[in-house]
Amino acid sequence: MLKRLPRVVREQQMLDAAVQVFSRRGFHAASMDEIAEVAGISKPMVYAYLGTKEELFLTCLRREATRLMEAVAAGVRPASRPDEQLWNGLRAFFAFVGAHRDGWRVLYRQARSEPHFAGELAGMRARIVEVVASLLEGACAQAEAAKPARPDDFLAMAYAYVGAAESLADWLADHEEEDPEHTATRMMNFVWVGADALLQGRVWRAQAE
Amino acid sequence: MLKRLPRVVREQQMLDAAVQVFSRRGFHAASMDEIAEVAGISKPMVYAYLGTKEELFLTCLRREATRLMEAVAAGVRPASRPDEQLWNGLRAFFAFVGAHRDGWRVLYRQARSEPHFAGELAGMRARIVEVVASLLEGACAQAEAAKPARPDDFLAMAYAYVGAAESLADWLADHEEEDPEHTATRMMNFVWVGADALLQGRVWRAQAE
Repeated sequence: MLKRLPRVVREQQMLDAAVQVFSRRGFHAASMDEIAEVAGISKPMVYAYLGTKEELFLTCLRREATRLMEAVAAGVRPASRPDEQLWNGLRAFFAFVGAHRDGWRVLYRQARSEPHFAGELAGMRARIVEVVASLLEGACAQAEAAKPARPDDFLAMAYAYVGAAESLADWLADHEEEDPEHTATRMMNFVWVGADALLQGRVWRAQAE
Repeated sequence: MLKRLPRVVREQQMLDAAVQVFSRRGFHAASMDEIAEVAGISKPMVYAYLGTKEELFLTCLRREATRLMEAVAAGVRPASRPDEQLWNGLRAFFAFVGAHRDGWRVLYRQARSEPHFAGELAGMRARIVEVVASLLEGACAQAEAAKPARPDDFLAMAYAYVGAAESLADWLADHEEEDPEHTATRMMNFVWVGADALLQGRVWRAQAE
């Protein structure tokens, strides 16, 4: 006899199966039959627990986004130096993407290219931009030498950061051989060191902890 | 009597009208009736010249992308210093986006969120990334102090550049009050100066020409 699993465990299993199938087939070609099969659960039960395919996709998207944001928040230590905050945040971000390449493809690529979900994704992205902008504002307030900037400046800068990180994460998701820590180092060189210093031979290196 | 216009002029008028209508309504809600009306041409003629709504959208997308790339290519002067190349390229890029906010919305946002066109856009983006990677490689070869890097490093860096520029351009398209030259300066600070030097109070300023 099949052991009865708590509802929450069963739901997570179904979501894991759904992320896998959406990632492999794309939203349109993914079938509820295959998701049920991968989850080892009957199709009516998938519907009963998680609703239509569209609702299921949205639930996957939100779960992956929440996990990603939690991982980054756990990485950043707001009391540390700006470069350490940035490094730890980026490291957590790329480690998450590297460990959930499937999830990233669902979260980012599929959702981005579906008019139904693009709004949801844009809302998540706007919240991430706000968080990054407030981290930048905090780092700037700590730095004595930095000129005061207007709130709009932080927001615009945050758009550039988030765009660069997204684009690199997308690249990472396609490069199985790339180490996520190395991707984080690339981004540190881009964002922290800057091209001027890079061309003068300066590079960013993580310090031993 | 209506003066007969050369075919190529008439086509450009229709494309201008189409970009305007797609941008205002979105791909799905845009109607060929409205495009014909804005262009001052009968609907059968729009179909005869430019095909279905989908074909018309693709033609708009390709025209806008070609114009954008031509503008950037005309801006970059490959013989100049790396920072000047970057500055002139960014300036041309953001000036184009600022002057064609409608076009950017068609080119980037609509195409990105339509599964039909996402492949076309991804192909264009890949070509832009290649160009940026080869510019980076050229700049690095000029710089004596910079460490030799592998081709993959330039490609990854190019993804970060293109992602940051896209994200900021998207922001610019939504901010009518923002001066494109100022956006280019933001990007120079992000890319060229880097956060470390910025927090030490260094900023990038365009030199008088």
